[in-house]
Amino acid sequence: MSDTPKFPNTSRRGFLKAAAGGAAAAATAGQAAAGTPDPAITEVQPWAQGFGDGVDAVPYGMPIEHEAHVVRRNVDWLTADVISSINFTPIHALEGTITPQGCAFERHHSGAIEMTKQDYRLMINGLVDQPLVFTYADLERFPRTVATFFCECAANSGMEWGGAQLQGAQFTHGMIHNMEYTGVSLRTLLNETGIKPEGKWIYVEGADASSNGRSIPLEKALDDVLVAFFANGEALRKEHGYPVRLVVPGWEGNLWVKWLRRIEVTDMPTESREETSKYTDLMPDGRARKWTWEMDAKSVITSPSPQAPVRHGPGPMVITGLAWSGRGAITGVDVSLDGGQNWREARLAAPGEQKALTRFYLDHVWDGSEMLLQARARDETGYVQPTKDQLREIRGRNSVYHNNGIQTWWVKANGEAENVEVS
Amino acid sequence: MSDTPKFPNTSRRGFLKAAAGGAAAAATAGQAAAGTPDPAITEVQPWAQGFGDGVDAVPYGMPIEHEAHVVRRNVDWLTADVISSINFTPIHALEGTITPQGCAFERHHSGAIEMTKQDYRLMINGLVDQPLVFTYADLERFPRTVATFFCECAANSGMEWGGAQLQGAQFTHGMIHNMEYTGVSLRTLLNETGIKPEGKWIYVEGADASSNGRSIPLEKALDDVLVAFFANGEALRKEHGYPVRLVVPGWEGNLWVKWLRRIEVTDMPTESREETSKYTDLMPDGRARKWTWEMDAKSVITSPSPQAPVRHGPGPMVITGLAWSGRGAITGVDVSLDGGQNWREARLAAPGEQKALTRFYLDHVWDGSEMLLQARARDETGYVQPTKDQLREIRGRNSVYHNNGIQTWWVKANGEAENVEVS
Repeated sequence: MSDTPKFPNTSRRGFLKAAAGGAAAAATAGQAAAGTPDPAITEVQPWAQGFGDGVDAVPYGMPIEHEAHVVRRNVDWLTADVISSINFTPIHALEGTITPQGCAFERHHSGAIEMTKQDYRLMINGLVDQPLVFTYADLERFPRTVATFFCECAANSGMEWGGAQLQGAQFTHGMIHNMEYTGVSLRTLLNETGIKPEGKWIYVEGADASSNGRSIPLEKALDDVLVAFFANGEALRKEHGYPVRLVVPGWEGNLWVKWLRRIEVTDMPTESREETSKYTDLMPDGRARKWTWEMDAKSVITSPSPQAPVRHGPGPMVITGLAWSGRGAITGVDVSLDGGQNWREARLAAPGEQKALTRFYLDHVWDGSEMLLQARARDETGYVQPTKDQLREIRGRNSVYHNNGIQTWWVKANGEAENVEVS
Repeated sequence: MSDTPKFPNTSRRGFLKAAAGGAAAAATAGQAAAGTPDPAITEVQPWAQGFGDGVDAVPYGMPIEHEAHVVRRNVDWLTADVISSINFTPIHALEGTITPQGCAFERHHSGAIEMTKQDYRLMINGLVDQPLVFTYADLERFPRTVATFFCECAANSGMEWGGAQLQGAQFTHGMIHNMEYTGVSLRTLLNETGIKPEGKWIYVEGADASSNGRSIPLEKALDDVLVAFFANGEALRKEHGYPVRLVVPGWEGNLWVKWLRRIEVTDMPTESREETSKYTDLMPDGRARKWTWEMDAKSVITSPSPQAPVRHGPGPMVITGLAWSGRGAITGVDVSLDGGQNWREARLAAPGEQKALTRFYLDHVWDGSEMLLQARARDETGYVQPTKDQLREIRGRNSVYHNNGIQTWWVKANGEAENVEVS
């Protein structure tokens, strides 16, 4: 095996062999050449001896059974009832940036309801020139836009405020998904009804029994909010609000009302239950921060992580994760292997997009010793993701919302990882 | 209802009402204000009276039953057996640009096979410095890239050469999908084995019984080809090549070998069955064009189309479709309503991306008369999608491959659409 790289535009020649301690991987990669017989390549495998499934077998496909562990999961003790609860995206097992609808987290307050497009109605009323009711067929006639956005629950990582240290990125950071939406700009529909001069807010409300409702300032409503009917190219799934949900880019998920029923233009915020007793941030002095809609820049290493341990020995490895900001594009992510003492700039899979997930990588040669892995996101406003302690200094430990502190995974010499805190 | 637009940055005020003949839509949109009771809004609906599904109901979700028609479909008479056949993406019912894996077309030659990651092996041999066998675990240790590409079967629209005129965009243009892939650059793996100076081609081969194999020039292999294991964020589905497939951006789908087993570096093309008797283009003089790997710029209107008729009367409507080019980015799409006599520039949902689907829209006010709808794509090389007759002048009607001619849908006054040819 020549030591002279033939492709000067890459530099990975001898990647597995050259790595310190990379014996296990090198043995596998080299075994055909070394003459060690591997039945997986020397024998004709069963799948090459007969027919597989025909093209009519699965009109709509599901993941292969070997991936049956890559599913949404809820946590029994987190809420009183699964009807008013949350489940979590298996981000530890996903890659790239798109979240498939089938395993994208979902939250609701009285269960995922079922309605038809025929039964769907959207009313826009209140301080408008002309109240209107739109059918689904009406909405289909308006100009559409397409864009990819992350949706994060304000309570994502909320258990970390008090140091609950759930064992897995799915549970600590999995109240997030990232999909390509198609819909009508809310601005277009509000332009259709007109808005009276005293109209300064909107109140948006779902059709489910909880009629989950929130206030949004008119400036945001006229900016980038979508009345969406498709996600990742197909109709919204039932649990994601079929047939129509609101998409409020960069803002907390509770505002992304599913089964969207009504939009009322108002002169002041409605101060609904969901924005008074819930979704406000209890401060140390007993007062509440409110109107904390924007999701601050945040990141998490998805692998390795407690549910995705390192399954190989020392040598080359991929450290990867996700970063996002409700204020715009991610401009960079730093990764620390030693609990924040030293930082290395991660490689972004693509330049950060507006209010969407960014995948980052650190291609690392692991020496086999334990690591305290951290990621730190930066966004285009110059904001840098803080530590949990920095957050607690200002906001205490009372809240369950808007924890965007730096997460630490303790990767042990045996490759297992654990949720820990460093200070 | 005031006639003065309050939002000068939009211009759709009175959109449904102002449209010529838009009475039906306007009546619906205005009915709440007009005092006509609509039980769908005046009565408490069943879904608001009780609980829906809990968050534990569907660990991995499927589309709602009302969308059960949005599935892959095959055509019985197209091939001798469904084990060596093709099904079609329901592009007439999708939106945006991402194709969900579950309804993305798939083609195979001896059925979709099942293997585990543990059993997976990839051999790289032939004119290399060091033949290597990679396990799945090995592949996971190399640096990854993430990118979205379309995959189109060379036979997409092939029946149109002879004028078969299948009734629906799903069947005429549905051998295409567009996914976000994560994987290892093939260049990285070839750099690992090294390539002898006489190595000029690679031969890529699948692990299924057909061992579908194709030749690819080394220049392409070292450019943007991926050894992919994730699509749209999750593991490849079984029918898309789990656990590993080749991604050959911009080139015909047959090269995107599924269940990728072996890559042999060669000094010349292998001239396999799949690139001699198949996937060459029979010309009028009996000779065959070969090495027609790149997919020429192409587009299709997905709605309205035979499976997606206009379900409303005259007035505002959305005409939408997809455009793509194997040579780079789409720079523009023109739409004709009169069979190619006059053209209007469509609105692209986003600037064209490299070798990926682009969604386009024409926001049109329909006068209710019949239309001969066409779309015409342009790409960054300056190439303009030709008519079918222009293609036939040069390439005859013998081939079933690489038909990128302009498609025509005849939309009748009653809103139904039919596949027709105009000349």
